[in-house]
Amino acid sequence: MTIAILGGGQLARMLVLAGTPLGLRFRCLDPAPDAVAGHVCEHLCAPFDDPDALAKLARGAEVVTFEFENVPAATTERLLQHGPVRPHPRALATGQDRLFEKQLFQHLGMGVPEYRTAHTLAELQAAVAAVGAPCIVKTRRLGYDGRGQARLKPGPELAAAIAAAHRELTRGNDGGLIVERFVPFQRELSVLAVRSLRGEIAVYPLVENVHEGGILRRSRAPAPDVSTATSKQAHDFVAAVLQDLDYVGVLAIELFDLGGTLLANEMAPRVHNSGHWTIEGSVCSQFENHVRAVAGLPLGSTAMAHGQATMVNCISTLPARDAALALPGVHVHAYGKQPRENRKVGHATVVGADRAAVDALAAKVSALPPARGEW
Amino acid sequence: MTIAILGGGQLARMLVLAGTPLGLRFRCLDPAPDAVAGHVCEHLCAPFDDPDALAKLARGAEVVTFEFENVPAATTERLLQHGPVRPHPRALATGQDRLFEKQLFQHLGMGVPEYRTAHTLAELQAAVAAVGAPCIVKTRRLGYDGRGQARLKPGPELAAAIAAAHRELTRGNDGGLIVERFVPFQRELSVLAVRSLRGEIAVYPLVENVHEGGILRRSRAPAPDVSTATSKQAHDFVAAVLQDLDYVGVLAIELFDLGGTLLANEMAPRVHNSGHWTIEGSVCSQFENHVRAVAGLPLGSTAMAHGQATMVNCISTLPARDAALALPGVHVHAYGKQPRENRKVGHATVVGADRAAVDALAAKVSALPPARGEW
Repeated sequence: MTIAILGGGQLARMLVLAGTPLGLRFRCLDPAPDAVAGHVCEHLCAPFDDPDALAKLARGAEVVTFEFENVPAATTERLLQHGPVRPHPRALATGQDRLFEKQLFQHLGMGVPEYRTAHTLAELQAAVAAVGAPCIVKTRRLGYDGRGQARLKPGPELAAAIAAAHRELTRGNDGGLIVERFVPFQRELSVLAVRSLRGEIAVYPLVENVHEGGILRRSRAPAPDVSTATSKQAHDFVAAVLQDLDYVGVLAIELFDLGGTLLANEMAPRVHNSGHWTIEGSVCSQFENHVRAVAGLPLGSTAMAHGQATMVNCISTLPARDAALALPGVHVHAYGKQPRENRKVGHATVVGADRAAVDALAAKVSALPPARGEW
Repeated sequence: MTIAILGGGQLARMLVLAGTPLGLRFRCLDPAPDAVAGHVCEHLCAPFDDPDALAKLARGAEVVTFEFENVPAATTERLLQHGPVRPHPRALATGQDRLFEKQLFQHLGMGVPEYRTAHTLAELQAAVAAVGAPCIVKTRRLGYDGRGQARLKPGPELAAAIAAAHRELTRGNDGGLIVERFVPFQRELSVLAVRSLRGEIAVYPLVENVHEGGILRRSRAPAPDVSTATSKQAHDFVAAVLQDLDYVGVLAIELFDLGGTLLANEMAPRVHNSGHWTIEGSVCSQFENHVRAVAGLPLGSTAMAHGQATMVNCISTLPARDAALALPGVHVHAYGKQPRENRKVGHATVVGADRAAVDALAAKVSALPPARGEW
């Protein structure tokens, strides 16, 4: 059985590594000649809208899935002519658009930060006035890792900042903007869950995330100090989203924790960086469970394997290789990517029974000097 | 950094899966067009003695390693012209020959079953007479999974059995025979260890193995009911072998346990089936540690990750797919091989804190009906 993946980055690579022991084969499509999933599976090097490449990708494949949500509609339409695409492009369409996402969250009774949409500069000015500064302007579509976002502060420079944000964020973007009120959250959480073809749902424990510059830096699971009620709220919410979208595969939802009150921020209709700890930290990782789900197989257990897990992202550079590998109990995942400013080039996970010990070892990884180049 | 592997079976495949997260690339050479490591790395499909293929295998590779010990001497000599081979072919030569192996074990003060060598039928008759039946005749070289072996029982048919064994085992075999006294062992154990390029040694806990028909069926780690003295003896012994051979990589030694007295049976200069449980059962698996060692990297921890582990081999067929995947906590590894009588097509591992619970779940896997074909 062959699984086709749209995209050949580190998420596709980890899907391949997790799915191969299930006896599955993989094929990916990515326009980048050095796409790192290509190290471990067949790699079709072509644009995402190349009809021949899409036909080749789907040929003989049981199912097509993807490692990113910004798939052009024309691409998914073509793929659907060849066979099943999971999760279904209908779900993708919601995850691609910050407005549709929020409307779904609200429809399911979940709170979201106050927001307004805008296209023109005048609409953006009105939206900021309605929501109030500080606020965040985001493109409705195609944003990730803090890209396609601008923070606006109150004060004499606000008008100029609005104009600059409008200029920046509407460049090459026809999907409009959304202004979100800045939420004084205590922390960011995420909830990852998976739904099978038969409708079974399994939810991973809540994750606590630390972002810097819009990029995830560190995740801890299970998120410390979460009440049973909060945990249940997140669990029920992600299950409701999965059901509403008739979703198949792994879904991640980012949440703001306002001292026990949760607001939904955004969702990612795919495996997610805040779930990388599940490779060592869970009985069955998000990657294996996504593969199981889209391949129509039974789900694996989302229980913690060791009690606690902390993941540290390697941004721009990996840590010094020998120093990192010499730390016992540190699981390093180097993605095989060229180091580049603000690029995710790897992550490291520490697992164990004791939260303080796990965090202490993770801190050692963060404190390592950077590697000089690739590993 | 690229690692070249001679052989492209499931051991090479698991080396690739374990080494890829270290940022390494892999290339394998295997004459079989359907070699399953080829699903996850570059596969050169050519005979092991093809000089051009060997040059291509080694080109740009940091090191060449192998997934089996029966490498022709001409092959290793050619490879050494291109760059480092780890473990060194000197170590391989010992592991390839049951006589050399036993002589090394004895040299290091380890007991071995009483044995005699033979080439001619007359020598074989004399050897059996000296050792006494019941005994086992083995080819000195090229045996595995019970092949190249014959068991001889005392009685009126012994003479005919000796003649038949000689006929069978000398066919296409120029390395001679070895006759080993049958040892009334209580159980079979194995010890796996790894030595780095810098000479660091790490040893996995002793493993208890159950063979049937010469093929490994089940491994449990740590082996239950092992005294500290026995454990230390095995540990010191494998460390002495590693040092004596200036070995780099993972080495496995099979032992007979005669109620606390250990005898060495044979060694495998490579990752070993009785170490497959280390993928989930150890902080750092035998596969990752072999890759770390041959690549010149620091070793990972050989400590147990969950306390207990049991591995069940899938011989001839895999278990029914959906039933196996639906068992929570069962880690199935399907090798992507066509089912065939007595072929190792996969394994399943169960880990946990409680020995009885781990064994009970492993027994459920063993009791599953077979899959109808490939997964």
